[in-house]
Amino acid sequence: IETRPDSGRERRKGAPEVIFGETKTTEQILAMAQGLLAGTGRAIISRMPAQSLEMVKEVFAQYEMRYQEASRMMVIYAPGYTRRSTGGRVGLISAGTSDIPVAEEAAMIAEEMGCKVTRIFDVGVAGLHRLIEPLRSLLEEDIDVILVVAGMDGALPSVIAGLSPVPVIGVPTSVGYGMGGKGVAALLSMLQTCAPGLAVVNIDNGVGAGITAGMIANRVAHTRGSRS
Amino acid sequence: IETRPDSGRERRKGAPEVIFGETKTTEQILAMAQGLLAGTGRAIISRMPAQSLEMVKEVFAQYEMRYQEASRMMVIYAPGYTRRSTGGRVGLISAGTSDIPVAEEAAMIAEEMGCKVTRIFDVGVAGLHRLIEPLRSLLEEDIDVILVVAGMDGALPSVIAGLSPVPVIGVPTSVGYGMGGKGVAALLSMLQTCAPGLAVVNIDNGVGAGITAGMIANRVAHTRGSRS
Amino acid sequence: IETRPDSGRERRKGAPEVIFGETKTTEQILAMAQGLLAGTGRAIISRMPAQSLEMVKEVFAQYEMRYQEASRMMVIYAPGYTRRSTGGRVGLISAGTSDIPVAEEAAMIAEEMGCKVTRIFDVGVAGLHRLIEPLRSLLEEDIDVILVVAGMDGALPSVIAGLSPVPVIGVPTSVGYGMGGKGVAALLSMLQTCAPGLAVVNIDNGVGAGITAGMIANRVAHTRGSRS
Amino acid sequence: IETRPDSGRERRKGAPEVIFGETKTTEQILAMAQGLLAGTGRAIISRMPAQSLEMVKEVFAQYEMRYQEASRMMVIYAPGYTRRSTGGRVGLISAGTSDIPVAEEAAMIAEEMGCKVTRIFDVGVAGLHRLIEPLRSLLEEDIDVILVVAGMDGALPSVIAGLSPVPVIGVPTSVGYGMGGKGVAALLSMLQTCAPGLAVVNIDNGVGAGITAGMIANRVAHTRGSRS
Amino acid sequence: IETRPDSGRERRKGAPEVIFGETKTTEQILAMAQGLLAGTGRAIISRMPAQSLEMVKEVFAQYEMRYQEASRMMVIYAPGYTRRSTGGRVGLISAGTSDIPVAEEAAMIAEEMGCKVTRIFDVGVAGLHRLIEPLRSLLEEDIDVILVVAGMDGALPSVIAGLSPVPVIGVPTSVGYGMGGKGVAALLSMLQTCAPGLAVVNIDNGVGAGITAGMIANRVAHTRGSRS
Amino acid sequence: IETRPDSGRERRKGAPEVIFGETKTTEQILAMAQGLLAGTGRAIISRMPAQSLEMVKEVFAQYEMRYQEASRMMVIYAPGYTRRSTGGRVGLISAGTSDIPVAEEAAMIAEEMGCKVTRIFDVGVAGLHRLIEPLRSLLEEDIDVILVVAGMDGALPSVIAGLSPVPVIGVPTSVGYGMGGKGVAALLSMLQTCAPGLAVVNIDNGVGAGITAGMIANRVAHTRGSRS
Amino acid sequence: IETRPDSGRERRKGAPEVIFGETKTTEQILAMAQGLLAGTGRAIISRMPAQSLEMVKEVFAQYEMRYQEASRMMVIYAPGYTRRSTGGRVGLISAGTSDIPVAEEAAMIAEEMGCKVTRIFDVGVAGLHRLIEPLRSLLEEDIDVILVVAGMDGALPSVIAGLSPVPVIGVPTSVGYGMGGKGVAALLSMLQTCAPGLAVVNIDNGVGAGITAGMIANRVAHTRGSRS
Amino acid sequence: IETRPDSGRERRKGAPEVIFGETKTTEQILAMAQGLLAGTGRAIISRMPAQSLEMVKEVFAQYEMRYQEASRMMVIYAPGYTRRSTGGRVGLISAGTSDIPVAEEAAMIAEEMGCKVTRIFDVGVAGLHRLIEPLRSLLEEDIDVILVVAGMDGALPSVIAGLSPVPVIGVPTSVGYGMGGKGVAALLSMLQTCAPGLAVVNIDNGVGAGITAGMIANRVAHTRGSRS
Ligand SMILES: Nc1ncnc2c1ncn2[C@@H]1O[C@H](COP(=O)(O)O)[C@@H](O)[C@H]1O
Ligand SMILES: Nc1ncnc2c1ncn2[C@@H]1O[C@H](COP(=O)(O)O)[C@@H](O)[C@H]1O
Ligand SMILES: Nc1ncnc2c1ncn2[C@@H]1O[C@H](COP(=O)(O)O)[C@@H](O)[C@H]1O
Ligand SMILES: Nc1ncnc2c1ncn2[C@@H]1O[C@H](COP(=O)(O)O)[C@@H](O)[C@H]1O
Ligand SMILES: [Mg+2]
Ligand SMILES: [Mg+2]
Ligand SMILES: [Mg+2]
Ligand SMILES: [Mg+2]
Ligand SMILES: [Mg+2]
Ligand SMILES: [Mg+2]
Ligand SMILES: [Mg+2]
Ligand SMILES: [Mg+2]
Repeated sequence: IETRPDSGRERRKGAPEVIFGETKTTEQILAMAQGLLAGTGRAIISRMPAQSLEMVKEVFAQYEMRYQEASRMMVIYAPGYTRRSTGGRVGLISAGTSDIPVAEEAAMIAEEMGCKVTRIFDVGVAGLHRLIEPLRSLLEEDIDVILVVAGMDGALPSVIAGLSPVPVIGVPTSVGYGMGGKGVAALLSMLQTCAPGLAVVNIDNGVGAGITAGMIANRVAHTRGSRS
Repeated sequence: IETRPDSGRERRKGAPEVIFGETKTTEQILAMAQGLLAGTGRAIISRMPAQSLEMVKEVFAQYEMRYQEASRMMVIYAPGYTRRSTGGRVGLISAGTSDIPVAEEAAMIAEEMGCKVTRIFDVGVAGLHRLIEPLRSLLEEDIDVILVVAGMDGALPSVIAGLSPVPVIGVPTSVGYGMGGKGVAALLSMLQTCAPGLAVVNIDNGVGAGITAGMIANRVAHTRGSRS
Repeated sequence: IETRPDSGRERRKGAPEVIFGETKTTEQILAMAQGLLAGTGRAIISRMPAQSLEMVKEVFAQYEMRYQEASRMMVIYAPGYTRRSTGGRVGLISAGTSDIPVAEEAAMIAEEMGCKVTRIFDVGVAGLHRLIEPLRSLLEEDIDVILVVAGMDGALPSVIAGLSPVPVIGVPTSVGYGMGGKGVAALLSMLQTCAPGLAVVNIDNGVGAGITAGMIANRVAHTRGSRS
Repeated sequence: IETRPDSGRERRKGAPEVIFGETKTTEQILAMAQGLLAGTGRAIISRMPAQSLEMVKEVFAQYEMRYQEASRMMVIYAPGYTRRSTGGRVGLISAGTSDIPVAEEAAMIAEEMGCKVTRIFDVGVAGLHRLIEPLRSLLEEDIDVILVVAGMDGALPSVIAGLSPVPVIGVPTSVGYGMGGKGVAALLSMLQTCAPGLAVVNIDNGVGAGITAGMIANRVAHTRGSRS
Repeated sequence: IETRPDSGRERRKGAPEVIFGETKTTEQILAMAQGLLAGTGRAIISRMPAQSLEMVKEVFAQYEMRYQEASRMMVIYAPGYTRRSTGGRVGLISAGTSDIPVAEEAAMIAEEMGCKVTRIFDVGVAGLHRLIEPLRSLLEEDIDVILVVAGMDGALPSVIAGLSPVPVIGVPTSVGYGMGGKGVAALLSMLQTCAPGLAVVNIDNGVGAGITAGMIANRVAHTRGSRS
Repeated sequence: IETRPDSGRERRKGAPEVIFGETKTTEQILAMAQGLLAGTGRAIISRMPAQSLEMVKEVFAQYEMRYQEASRMMVIYAPGYTRRSTGGRVGLISAGTSDIPVAEEAAMIAEEMGCKVTRIFDVGVAGLHRLIEPLRSLLEEDIDVILVVAGMDGALPSVIAGLSPVPVIGVPTSVGYGMGGKGVAALLSMLQTCAPGLAVVNIDNGVGAGITAGMIANRVAHTRGSRS
Repeated sequence: IETRPDSGRERRKGAPEVIFGETKTTEQILAMAQGLLAGTGRAIISRMPAQSLEMVKEVFAQYEMRYQEASRMMVIYAPGYTRRSTGGRVGLISAGTSDIPVAEEAAMIAEEMGCKVTRIFDVGVAGLHRLIEPLRSLLEEDIDVILVVAGMDGALPSVIAGLSPVPVIGVPTSVGYGMGGKGVAALLSMLQTCAPGLAVVNIDNGVGAGITAGMIANRVAHTRGSRS
Repeated sequence: IETRPDSGRERRKGAPEVIFGETKTTEQILAMAQGLLAGTGRAIISRMPAQSLEMVKEVFAQYEMRYQEASRMMVIYAPGYTRRSTGGRVGLISAGTSDIPVAEEAAMIAEEMGCKVTRIFDVGVAGLHRLIEPLRSLLEEDIDVILVVAGMDGALPSVIAGLSPVPVIGVPTSVGYGMGGKGVAALLSMLQTCAPGLAVVNIDNGVGAGITAGMIANRVAHTRGSRS
């Protein structure tokens, strides 16, 4: 047996198993997707390899699908599957346009976990006045957690964590070249933040960010929901 | 003016300003503590330098104090200050005995933010059966978030995140020598986790971990509390 | 003279010379293979370059061959060559599906050294209960040494070394991206293990892992065999 | 001959030679200081070693002196030496209190080059509203260049460079621990800035920052001065 | 909304917004360029991706354009746009032929900011006599700032900063292989300079270098110009 | 509870728990030692801190002890404890004199596991003829595994692994300064070995090396022993 | 002017200017080659880019040429050019077959400087007995300097430097993968050598190695020659 | 046996064995020194630990000694020992005053090998005119090899190698702080040199540099000497 997708994860963790496509063959991806569809009614594949995309689409042509091109992320739903809606609220901010693929990867996962995701893209750090208004509107929606996606200097998550009364997860992206490029400076700057309450995931790890945010928001929502 | 402690942070963020003692002179620590006591009724000092401790104790001899030796962390309360209790619940696990100072730093902050902290120390990763029972009892307390503090291989947070239905924050410590020592392998292994929903803070950053956990737990608690 | 394959290695070491194909021209690979076939009756080529494969197959079309695609590893046998069987027993565990090519490289070498290899793939670290059963069955076979192949967080070898009464060799793989990616975190975490008795080889070095395991198992087997 | 202080530098460069005390013996410092006093009427010593301070003070007891304790920087003036005033204007911002020694090192050099230095300390990045007012007042003084001194996340220089119409020089300091600590994250984040027009010097290099700022401001001042 | 080009930057900073093409799709580049043309009358695109070039040329075929091939940098002017001329003077020296693309990137930006740029290429450091004459002629033009572009050992900026009475900005390039290659040694050597008054930008960051030089030169020029 | 020494490890693993003294307080060391003495009849402490030594000696004054000064390693035996002798045979080679502390740490552990350890110290790599004779005599003892301890260039393990028919474990030490110093080059060179069958442990990890060697030798010895 | 090849280098240094092809356009290579042919009668081009080779061959079709394919190194001679023969003697040893391209690059340069180069390839370090004979024969030729080219563990230069009475230059190659791969471990191990009298050049720098060896050998040869 | 000093090295290599004091106990140093004095009539100890110095002086009080304080290097001569004089000529240049200890370490070794060493200290790179005259006078002495010792930017060796017709060995020193500090930038810049014919040794490795220079100069001198 080559693959053992973890169908029990969703029940155990409240977070879905995700197939990491990048280092797998088409055969392995298909086998794992089939396993998850059988076990949970849904298969999520991140970083779908270019050479596997068509085959996967073909094999599951009868299934409902969701595919986000920038992030090469795909969700396949077994017939009759209905995505739950938890009431969790995730805010999602990207520093630049180039950070969108990672941001979308996170958004999709959080949405698959039942959260509502509010996106604000390309607010930058090099013109702070451009950030104030979008952030205010986000906080007015009473979100439960904010994901801030940024490459290059990685300064934006620190700035936002200094201003927000909810937990912030920094998501460095591999945007940037030269010393500290490919997300290294961004990650290190977030780890060194002087703002309180900023936790991080690895460079380009939209999946991990989305799951963490989803788990936080869902825990709040669970309490919130059970209130009424 | 040399120091401007951020008295408004608590109101803005729901998390207290913390004075980072390590790179400050006794004079600077005293001035900042006085500023915070005046502004918020409480001063928290992390990594108190050995040479400043006596002087700080003396100057604030009339105030109520809390001092944790392993982490060199101090809290000073202005007369009449009452720490709030939010109902937030934080689980705290350390891999080894040497990780306790960082774990305590995190615990103190979360407690200052009003949370209840349940500690489990030295469960290790090299004898997994030793971990199962304590983890079960922790989850039965229905905690809102788990902090896992580990040095050396940093494997424990991944193991726990794979088993827990609440968000997990990994806190690497600078325990370990040789290649990947001083917490580097621990941090990298956590960043590379194949478990879902593990976010991290920097090596030895108990303060940041405690604030993040406190903010998550307090957001849940706020909803929980407003329920009744 | 451009190449001097070490035909005496097998006699001297009990371990075969292996041609590292990756940085060689087709001409060099052919010359070395011919040298080894003449000297020892067998030629083993690791990381066969894509552009050399067809030519090598063609030139040795009359010979018996074994080719493992995922690892691009090939063994060519001279007519009449019989692989010995030593009775050595090697256990082989992979954390994920993407680690299989490196695991197979190690397995093939150990098999060429006469050992029996028991494979368990994709047991993960993010659902420990999934590991317990396979490990138990492996230990019941009374194996002599365990190879644990893992990328990303590299936590699995530490977990297994904590539970096993036989020597464990950790084999990090270049699976993983971002900070600590390409196997760096996996290797460092294994080097920093707090489990006793875990030695490692370099990232993706299935050949070295297989030879080490083969030498350990064969030394035990030699004693075992000479018993009766 | 062991030391050859570069007395001609001031004439050649418009910037003074500075004796780097840290790795020198007291004898070498004295010899170089004497050489510079003879050649230019002034000796500047950075990072005065603790064990040399008293001796240097004693030997030059008859001379006018300026000593800044936090930065361990000393200037000795030969009798009759008058520091010129160029009209150059340097703005100096520090992120935290711990960055002040490096900031003062830069300030002293710029002042020795004849500039007026306006200092703003501890404005932080974790409460941006606290930055706006001081920055505005600085820009109203029509300064020629801004030095921004920051450790940890190093985010402040990017924020300020995004808002200022004059050149900004980022000065990372060795404040911060863990991964990216000792100024590494700060430097890398500044190098990766997405704000336009931010150049940097090395970690803790207040001397280099001060000279660069002094040269920029003096070139502007020279033109300005020759105007009337 | 995916992109928000910062049209206000030019007014705020005196430096233009530059679209970083490398990590953008053709659609994003077109949208941002259109936004900037509408807002400021000019769009500057650095590191134009090979696959976007033709499309961008086509869409803006009616506009005046400037395209520098080595650096893949493009400027598009709206009808009626006139580039201002400020009187700022920038000197530009490259160590080798391979550094020219980065040097040209810097030159174009400074020119777009209204400066006059004097170029001297391939002067090397391995034959210092070859440097003296060009440097002298540069200084005789009374330039306001010098950019020195160098890869490999990165020694040239230190040598030039030691000889020049104007501010020097070092621009490391990713030329060089082996340990310290891809510009790492060049950047580190510049950061470690023992010459006074050398600030740096990141490896290959011609855009940042050009903007910094342009801001310095324009501040001098502004004073100079307002003189008469 | 602060410490939970793993008394079951010896039974589970055939290798003893070892208290890592370096980062522990005297109180913690005493508590853990008492726990292990009660549970297994023996306590092993590595890297005993200078400030704890006297106290530990005093508290356990009634117990039999073994203390190796160079490695600061101590073994305490409960009354009546008898160390088993397994018949396992470990060869131990050090490259230099400075590597002896780490070598002795490994030797002590292997001896505590019941093995016979044959030591050869300071054979160097810079005079290979000096190595041949000792290695031959070692192999004539029919040892089961060889530990090679080396700092600086780390070349010796590769040389020995190329000549030996038994498994070799490389143990890098933190001897050496400059680039690749503190054992980094030694470890990397061992990881990159072109000799077959060399596995490694982390820099200075004599404990891990000793346990690995002990487990290999004991597995062979177990078979050997049960033969007769 | 884009390129200024240093025609005077040969006269000044006794070593030829070499055009580094890798980062140059075909036009730049042609222009520099023409400059050198005019100035010195010979043009040496290292790392000729694949896409430039045919054009260069065509343009200089009338000239005598020498092209070594593995290293992509080319020498073009102007009509009537005669290569001098100095009597310098260089020994050249490679550890593996994959190191030959770098070795040949060094050999060609030393030959162009007039030296006689004796090559011994693929002697390895994993079977030391295979090294002794070739080394002896090399020393019997009374060579002036030895170049040892090695990737992976980089152990061979240390071994040879320990046995040879002439200066040894280590040349690491980018052979090897995983941690310390691409020549990093090889270079670091050589820098950390415990053998006396081993100097190094950068990874894959055959040109630098060849020139250094050529300069040493030629200085000896000059004295030797002028003897009679 | 703990130590085996290599008394045969001098005969084998023409270079003396040197005891590396830094990581040895006083007992080990004394034993090795006695061994070498007995074997070769001379013992050389580098980096003598402060705590061993007095004891060593006392034990060998009857012997002739040479002790250089800055480098903590000692030579002890047995009665009747006469240092040979070979006629080899070594030039030695240091960039700064702080580089002198490493330079003196190299000088002493070369002198012990019989060479004449001409020293030029603190010529800097930040004022090139200050270098020309000393270099010219050095070359006029017709030296056989130049050692250039430099920390910080490490630019000086490249500059000198570009101007000198004899081999140059770069010796980086651990002078410098911040990114690339402790000699890292200096070493990398030398490895990346664009000057021809520069080989290097590790950071602070005066011993290795001195031996290499001594071996080169002595080989030339041997030929020179045998001329007449
Ligand atoms: N895939 C591999 N990874 C690590 N080492 C290898 C690999 N293949 C071969 N080797 C070893 O590397 C040595 C050098 O390879 P070669 O360059 O073929 O002489 C061989 O003798 C093998 O012991
Ligand atoms: N604290 C400092 N940081 C960086 N550079 C310095 C410092 N102090 C002096 N320098 C520069 O470093 C050069 C070398 O210093 P020295 O070793 O004193 O010759 C001096 O000429 C100064 O330009
Ligand atoms: N080639 C470049 N190198 C460095 N910075 C750049 C480059 N091109 C554009 N930038 C800056 O990077 C910022 C972010 O780019 P963008 O992703 O286009 O919003 C821009 O606002 C520019 O200031
Ligand atoms: N010197 C040492 N080096 C490496 N590992 C050690 C050392 N001493 C003890 N250990 C291991 O590290 C684990 C954690 O140590 P402790 O912090 O004492 O629980 C122990 O269980 C041992 O297996
Ligand atoms: Mg933008
Ligand atoms: Mg433990
Ligand atoms: Mg899996
Ligand atoms: Mg503050
Ligand atoms: Mg050139
Ligand atoms: Mg020795
Ligand atoms: Mg070989
Ligand atoms: Mg100087």
